[in-house]
Amino acid sequence: MEIKGKICFVFLVFVVSATLSFGDHQGIVFAEKEQAVRKIVSQCHQSCQGSQGEQQRPQCFQSCMQKQLRESGKSQSGETYRPEPTYRPETGKQQSNSPYVFEEHDFTTRLETEHGFVKFLKKFTEQSEELFKGIEKYRAAILEAEPLTFIQPNHWDADALVFVANGRGILDLIEGNSRKSHNIKQGDLFLVPAGISAYLINTDENERLVLAKILHSVSVPGELQFFSGGGNADSFFNVFSREILEAAFGVERESIGRIFGQQKVEEAAFKKATPEQIRSLAGEDKGTLWPFGERKEKYLHTSIYEKEPSVANENGILHEFDSKDFSGLKDINVAFSFLNITQGSMAGPFYNTKATLVLMVTNGVGRFEMACPHLSEQASSRGEIHPRYKKVSSELRCGMEVVIPAGHPVVIKAFGEQNLEVVGFGLNSDENEWFPLAGRDNVMSQWEDTALELTFGFPAQEVQRVIKKQHKKLFFKAPVRSGRAFA
Amino acid sequence: MEIKGKICFVFLVFVVSATLSFGDHQGIVFAEKEQAVRKIVSQCHQSCQGSQGEQQRPQCFQSCMQKQLRESGKSQSGETYRPEPTYRPETGKQQSNSPYVFEEHDFTTRLETEHGFVKFLKKFTEQSEELFKGIEKYRAAILEAEPLTFIQPNHWDADALVFVANGRGILDLIEGNSRKSHNIKQGDLFLVPAGISAYLINTDENERLVLAKILHSVSVPGELQFFSGGGNADSFFNVFSREILEAAFGVERESIGRIFGQQKVEEAAFKKATPEQIRSLAGEDKGTLWPFGERKEKYLHTSIYEKEPSVANENGILHEFDSKDFSGLKDINVAFSFLNITQGSMAGPFYNTKATLVLMVTNGVGRFEMACPHLSEQASSRGEIHPRYKKVSSELRCGMEVVIPAGHPVVIKAFGEQNLEVVGFGLNSDENEWFPLAGRDNVMSQWEDTALELTFGFPAQEVQRVIKKQHKKLFFKAPVRSGRAFA
Amino acid sequence: MEIKGKICFVFLVFVVSATLSFGDHQGIVFAEKEQAVRKIVSQCHQSCQGSQGEQQRPQCFQSCMQKQLRESGKSQSGETYRPEPTYRPETGKQQSNSPYVFEEHDFTTRLETEHGFVKFLKKFTEQSEELFKGIEKYRAAILEAEPLTFIQPNHWDADALVFVANGRGILDLIEGNSRKSHNIKQGDLFLVPAGISAYLINTDENERLVLAKILHSVSVPGELQFFSGGGNADSFFNVFSREILEAAFGVERESIGRIFGQQKVEEAAFKKATPEQIRSLAGEDKGTLWPFGERKEKYLHTSIYEKEPSVANENGILHEFDSKDFSGLKDINVAFSFLNITQGSMAGPFYNTKATLVLMVTNGVGRFEMACPHLSEQASSRGEIHPRYKKVSSELRCGMEVVIPAGHPVVIKAFGEQNLEVVGFGLNSDENEWFPLAGRDNVMSQWEDTALELTFGFPAQEVQRVIKKQHKKLFFKAPVRSGRAFA
Repeated sequence: MEIKGKICFVFLVFVVSATLSFGDHQGIVFAEKEQAVRKIVSQCHQSCQGSQGEQQRPQCFQSCMQKQLRESGKSQSGETYRPEPTYRPETGKQQSNSPYVFEEHDFTTRLETEHGFVKFLKKFTEQSEELFKGIEKYRAAILEAEPLTFIQPNHWDADALVFVANGRGILDLIEGNSRKSHNIKQGDLFLVPAGISAYLINTDENERLVLAKILHSVSVPGELQFFSGGGNADSFFNVFSREILEAAFGVERESIGRIFGQQKVEEAAFKKATPEQIRSLAGEDKGTLWPFGERKEKYLHTSIYEKEPSVANENGILHEFDSKDFSGLKDINVAFSFLNITQGSMAGPFYNTKATLVLMVTNGVGRFEMACPHLSEQASSRGEIHPRYKKVSSELRCGMEVVIPAGHPVVIKAFGEQNLEVVGFGLNSDENEWFPLAGRDNVMSQWEDTALELTFGFPAQEVQRVIKKQHKKLFFKAPVRSGRAFA
Repeated sequence: MEIKGKICFVFLVFVVSATLSFGDHQGIVFAEKEQAVRKIVSQCHQSCQGSQGEQQRPQCFQSCMQKQLRESGKSQSGETYRPEPTYRPETGKQQSNSPYVFEEHDFTTRLETEHGFVKFLKKFTEQSEELFKGIEKYRAAILEAEPLTFIQPNHWDADALVFVANGRGILDLIEGNSRKSHNIKQGDLFLVPAGISAYLINTDENERLVLAKILHSVSVPGELQFFSGGGNADSFFNVFSREILEAAFGVERESIGRIFGQQKVEEAAFKKATPEQIRSLAGEDKGTLWPFGERKEKYLHTSIYEKEPSVANENGILHEFDSKDFSGLKDINVAFSFLNITQGSMAGPFYNTKATLVLMVTNGVGRFEMACPHLSEQASSRGEIHPRYKKVSSELRCGMEVVIPAGHPVVIKAFGEQNLEVVGFGLNSDENEWFPLAGRDNVMSQWEDTALELTFGFPAQEVQRVIKKQHKKLFFKAPVRSGRAFA
Repeated sequence: MEIKGKICFVFLVFVVSATLSFGDHQGIVFAEKEQAVRKIVSQCHQSCQGSQGEQQRPQCFQSCMQKQLRESGKSQSGETYRPEPTYRPETGKQQSNSPYVFEEHDFTTRLETEHGFVKFLKKFTEQSEELFKGIEKYRAAILEAEPLTFIQPNHWDADALVFVANGRGILDLIEGNSRKSHNIKQGDLFLVPAGISAYLINTDENERLVLAKILHSVSVPGELQFFSGGGNADSFFNVFSREILEAAFGVERESIGRIFGQQKVEEAAFKKATPEQIRSLAGEDKGTLWPFGERKEKYLHTSIYEKEPSVANENGILHEFDSKDFSGLKDINVAFSFLNITQGSMAGPFYNTKATLVLMVTNGVGRFEMACPHLSEQASSRGEIHPRYKKVSSELRCGMEVVIPAGHPVVIKAFGEQNLEVVGFGLNSDENEWFPLAGRDNVMSQWEDTALELTFGFPAQEVQRVIKKQHKKLFFKAPVRSGRAFA
C-alpha cells in the first residue's frame, strides 16, 4: 500500500476506516456571545470528564459542544459525517515558491516499513539559511503507524514535543530502573526528552496513529540521530564485538549471537503486532495524565481538551499550551497551539510578538496570507528607506507546513466543507504573546484619538467606527465570495 | 534641513535651540574625597526628588552637585553655558581602520522624513564575522525626532533597550486591551519588548528627541523587521485583500478603502503634530516610573538618576543599571552604563569580565585606547607562543560607536571643553563585573608581596609604592600635555 | 628538558619523581556486592575526613578502600608501587583518523617557558564544523607546571572548569578589593569565572602540577584571549602611553618605566620560585573548601572525593559533579565526571541523554568503542532509510581526548597494568542523565515481555536470560582475551 505523499493522512483515514468520527468536528456552530460559548465549553468539559472513559473524551467534547450549541438555536448544519470530502485539491500541481511554505516533497521518509514511517521536514536552514537561522535547532516531523503496530524501543538526540493528530495507542517511556506507560489519544500532547528510551503502540484495530512532532536537537543544531538497540542486524549493539557484549551481559557467546543481529533490517522499526500482543501491552493499568502526576517537572502528558480554550466562538477555537502550563517547555523554548477554524471562517489578522510559528495542517483545506517585509529588503540597497510589505500566501492542505516569523501579520482561512485544523508550534516562545490586528482587543483599539488622527489622517470617530465595530475575537466569518478566488 | 551624518546630534541641538542647558554638565568639579562626593550625590538626589517636577530632575541633579561642590571650595570653573564648543573635529577626514570603531558612514538611515529618522549601525558581523560572532544578535540604533513630532504606532521583531540621550516626550506601549503612557526625558532608560506596539511623541517645542538604542533581535540574529499598520499606502494591512479586511473588521468595503492606504508613503513614520495635538496626547495623567509600578517584571522604565551612581568623583560619574535592578534585562542579557567624564579627565584602565561593551558617544570629544591581543593572533602561526598586545585607539566624537570585548583593558579620555558623555551597553552581561587596573581597588592591590616580586621582578615595597598611590577610583585627571598628541 | 608532546604527563611524573605514590590506585579490588562497597566508601570517606590534613585525603581514601577491601578477603594484588609501567604505547605511529579522537598533535602550546606551559586542544569546529557546531563555545586545555613554579596573575575571556589531575599547589582568585587563597590538590575541582584575575603556585618540590580544563568562551565562540598585566615587556599595560599610566597610577614617570616593561618576555607566565618564596605564598591560613564556604553561588572549589561515588565496584569507580551540586555550573552548562576503570575492566556500554562528553585520559591505556550513526548519513542520500551504525574506536593513551556525542553508545576498556583514569567533561549538560545499556538498570530491563518478543523475535524468557543476568552496574570485567586484539 502506498501511503506516503500525495494525500493527507487524515483523508486517508477516511478511506481506510469507515468507522471514524472525524466529521464530528465539522458543522460546529457557536453562539455569537462568547460568554455563552465559554459557559458551554465549561459544561462540556465537565460532563465529558465524569462518566466516560478517557478514550472518548475528545469526541465527547466536540459532540457536546455541537449539541449544546444546536440547542441554543444557532446550528447551521446537522451533518456530522462526511465520508468523502468534496474538495479535492490538485496537489503537486500548484507548488508554492515561497520559502515559508513546505510541501510533501520537502519531507524525507525514514525508518519506513509497510507498517509505518517517520517523515522529517528538511532543515529550515536548508530552505533558507538567511531566514531561518534563528530556528536552526528545530525540526518538524510526522509519524504514522498502521493499526495494530509496535514501534520498537529507541531514543533520539533531540527533545520531542508531540501532538496526537489522529488515533490512539500506548507510549512507554523508560529510564534505567523505571518505566511509565501512557494511554495516548487524539488531542494529547506529550514531551519526550532527548535520550529517553521509548516504545509506542498503535492499539487501534482500524485507525492509523498519526503524531505531529517538533524536535529540538541537543547535539548538532538541526541534525537528528536515531538509536535503536533491538534485535535486528542494524542494532547499535552490533558495532560492539561479541567479546565485549559477552562481558557486558555476563553471558556466553552463543546467547549474544542469538539475541542480537538475527532479524532482518526491513523489520526494524515498525512491526505488526497481533491483537493478543496488543492486549498484553495494553493490559496494565496505565497511569494518569501528567503533568498532574508526580514527576511533573520532567515529563509532560496532557490533553489539549483538559484546558479551557483561549478563544472559542462560532468561527473557531484556539487551544494553547505553554511553559506557564508546564515549565519543562521552557527548556526547549516551544509553545503549542491548535486552531480549529470553522469552515468558511478565518483566523486573524494577528501576529506573535517573539515566537516563530510553525503551522502543520492536520485536516481540511484553506489559505494563508502573510505580510512580509523580508522579501523587499533589496529595496534598501536601492536607496529606499521605507518598508514595503509583500503578500506571502499559499493554499493550505493536509500535511503542509508553513512558517510565520515573529511580528508578521497573518490571516488563515478555511474553505471547502471541513473545518481547517492547524497545529501551531511556537519556536523560541519565551515571553511570547499574540495580538489581534482586527476585532476585539485589537492593538488599535487602545490608541488615543489624536494618535488615530495622526496615523490615519481622518477624524478619530471615523476611524473608530472601523476599528471598533467587530466584537468577535480572532475568529471571524470569512469573505462570502469564493475564498479560493482572492489572491 | 540636512540633519543626519557629519555632526553630532547634541552639537546640533546647540545650534537649533539656544535655550538648552546642556552646558550644565561641564565644569562640574567634585571633592577629592569620594566619601564627601557620595554625601553630596545623596543630598542632591534627595533635594531634587522632592519639590520639583520630574521633568527637571536631571538638570536639577547636575546643578545641585555643581553648586554643592563649588561651595565645598573646589570649583575650578563657573562656566555653565557654552553655546558653541570651541573644539570642532574635522570629521570624515580621520577615519579609523579598526574593526572596533564605527563611524557615521557605518550607519544606515531608515524611515526618514523631514521630521526625523532612525539610523541603524550595520550588523556587527558585517564588520567582522570573526570578532563579533558572539554579539550577532544585537544591533545598535539611534532615533532622532524633531520638536513636536509624532512617531506612528509600530512594532519590531526585536527587544529594545532605550536611553533618552536628549529631549523629552511621551511613550505609549500597547498590548491588546491596555495602554500605558510614559513621560520620558533625558536620562531615562526603558525596555520595549519585541512585538509590543508603541508610539512616541516629541512634546518639546524646541529640543530634538534623541534615543540611543540597543536592539536584541528575536527572529533572525541581527536582522530587524519593522511593522507599521497605519493609514499610509505601505501599511502592512494593505497586503490583505479588501474582502479579508472587510470581514475582519466587520465593516463595509468603502470604509476600509478610506481608512487604509490613503496617505502618502513619505508621511509614514515621523509626522509633524500641532501644539494642540501634542497637548491632547500629553493630557493624560501619565503613569509613574517603572519598575516601581505594578507590572515590573515585564516593562522597565526608570531614570538613571533615580539610582545612586556606582562611582562619582571630580573626574567623572558612572551610572549603572543591570538585571539585579530589573530582572527583565536578564532575558536580553544586556546591562546599561553611562559615563560622564569630566573635561580633561579619563576613565580607566579597566576591563569587563564577561560583557562586550558597546560605547555610544552622546556628547563631547575624546579618545579611547584598548589593549588588544586579537590583532596579533598571526603571531602564533609564526610559532610565537606568548601574547603580544597591540594598541587599538581612535578619537571619539558624538555619534561614534566603539566595541570593547570582554577582558580587554581600556582607557577613555575626555578632551576639548565639554564633558565626554558615553552610553555603554554591556552585551552578554550575565554575571558581568568590571575591575579597575589602576587606582583604588585595582586588581593588583590584593596581590601578596611575593606575587608582586615574582611578577614585576622588583622588591614588593617598590611596586606597592606605584600600585597603591592613587586613591581615586576609575576616574582620574588625564595627562596634562595635550591628550590629542598621545598616540 | 623536553616535556610536551609524545608521552603522558603522568608517566613523566614517574620518571621525574620516585617518591610519588600513584601506584596506589592500582590493584584496588572491590567487593562484589556494591552494598558492601558503598559502606566501605562511606567509612573511608569518614575516616579520611577526620584526623588527617586535607593534603593527604585522596591518597588516604584510595589506601583506605584498598585496605578495607583487602580485609574483606577479595584483594588480588598487593602491589602498590610500579616505578615503570610495562606498557609503552608507540605513540605517533598509530594515529586515529576519526574526527572524534584528538591526539598530541591536535594541541597547540602557549605561554611556554622552561617551567611550564598551557596547551589548547584545537577548536572542535576546526576538526569538524558539521559534527561539533553544538559545542563550538568550548575548548579543552591542559596546564602543566614544574615543581616550585609561580604562574603570573592573568585573566581569560572564558570560564574555566578545572580538575587537578596531579600534584598540589595554591590558587589565588582576585576581585577588586578581595582575594581568596585556595589549597588545591589532586582530585580537586574548581571553577574560575571569565575575567577573574588569578595566580597559581605549584608548591610541591617534586611533583608536577597538572590541570585538566574545559573553557567556556564568553566572547567569540571557541576563541580564547589571555590577558596578563605583569612586569614583562609584553604586559598589556605597555600598550598605554607612559603619560596615561602616570596619570592613572598618580606616580612620576620614572616609577612607571621601572615597574612595567623591564622583564624579558621569555620569563612571562611560568616562573621558578625559591622555596622561601613558596613558603611565603603558602604561609597564610588558606580557606575552606567551597561551595561549602560563604560565596558559594559564585565560586566552586571542592574535591571529587568529598562526595560519594555514583557507582563503585571492583571494576571501577565513577565520580560525578553537576549543577545540582553547584548551581554555578548551570551558567556554563558543564558537568564533571571521573572514571577510574580497574585494569582489565571496562565501563559501558552506556550513553548520555543530552550532554556531549569530552574525555581526557589522565592515566593508563585502554580503548574506546562507540556506535555512531553520523558517519553513515550518506546512506540516506543513496535512498536508504534505515540507520546503519559504524564503529568508531581508538586506543586511549594519556593526554588523548575523545568526544562522545549525546545518545551515542560507548564502551571504555582499560588494559595494561594500570587503572585507566579518564576525566569526562559533559558539555551542554543541562538535564543530562546517563543510562546503562547492559548490566543492572539497563534500559531493556524495564521492557515488557511482549515488547522484548516483538523487538528481538524470541520468547521473552530467552531474552530476559541475557539482559538480566549481569548484576553489576556500569563497570564490568573486560573480555579475557587480549583487549588490544579486538577491533
